[in-house]
Amino acid sequence: MAHKISSKLLWQQGDSWRLRLDMLQLPDGRTAQKGAVEHPGAVVLVPIRPSAQGPEVLMLRQYRHVLDTVILELPAGTRGWDEPWLTCAQRELREETGHRAETFTSLGQVWPAPGLSDELMQLYLAEELTPAPLPGDEDEAIEVVPMPLTELETMAWDGRLLDAKSIVAILRAVHLLAQR
Amino acid sequence: MAHKISSKLLWQQGDSWRLRLDMLQLPDGRTAQKGAVEHPGAVVLVPIRPSAQGPEVLMLRQYRHVLDTVILELPAGTRGWDEPWLTCAQRELREETGHRAETFTSLGQVWPAPGLSDELMQLYLAEELTPAPLPGDEDEAIEVVPMPLTELETMAWDGRLLDAKSIVAILRAVHLLAQR
Repeated sequence: MAHKISSKLLWQQGDSWRLRLDMLQLPDGRTAQKGAVEHPGAVVLVPIRPSAQGPEVLMLRQYRHVLDTVILELPAGTRGWDEPWLTCAQRELREETGHRAETFTSLGQVWPAPGLSDELMQLYLAEELTPAPLPGDEDEAIEVVPMPLTELETMAWDGRLLDAKSIVAILRAVHLLAQR
Repeated sequence: MAHKISSKLLWQQGDSWRLRLDMLQLPDGRTAQKGAVEHPGAVVLVPIRPSAQGPEVLMLRQYRHVLDTVILELPAGTRGWDEPWLTCAQRELREETGHRAETFTSLGQVWPAPGLSDELMQLYLAEELTPAPLPGDEDEAIEVVPMPLTELETMAWDGRLLDAKSIVAILRAVHLLAQR
């Protein structure tokens, strides 16, 4: 197995993720450079509320700079390096949807991109929503779109939903709610 | 919405992904720098075969440098920039599991990390496996672990499986196979 000879920090995205470069020694003696994104982690939220047509989820249509397109996804956001997970969850929920939740239930954790980044995402079902907006990030372009949970489940199965974290969190929410 | 003023390439991981830095103008007139990972895309494979106990999947226990740990995940790999998706799928399957597949069935696509990277993953069910090894990457430390599909489904629901791409691909494979 390769082992690390040296490391340096190449770049940092504000007070968020940073790119580290590691010099590795390979089993055959050669060396290779490998990039590793150090990430503070993120929360992913399934904000759900009852409606006459059954449970609905506050989804986002959000412009994603790196894709240069608007995508459908759950509210989510990067944690401050020392921020408690539930503080981050409530803050991101208020910034992105204008609502706070009375209860957060864990839907587990995922690594979104372990070949590239050490980011860990904490997934939560967020319930008992009430309006409580906070100003969002300057560079975010977000529209809140309430959608039926059943429609989102269908989209997670048939491929119309493309955002991996949203697929996992929605399917786990459906699974949890079916067990109540 | 923010718009891009200028761009430069900061770093490139061999002939694979690269980090671009964009200078953005924000709606309030200030400028901000944003990192964007340009990625050639990847394939994710669910190599499945019959066994006396029901369908089993060739999973990997793979050392992930950035996490500094061994994780359980599906075979997957980065595409060459001009490589056809199915060529990449067959190559990665042979390199990582020592098997080729007669049939590949699409399980859709996902963006693993659209806040950071434009990587698109193509998910495939890989069937009718026969031994046909190819040498793997020098810096990969991989062990192939056949596991029952039903156990993996349980692990995807209860959170023991942490790799997002593997959760989506396994659940979609279960869903597809249930419809046959």
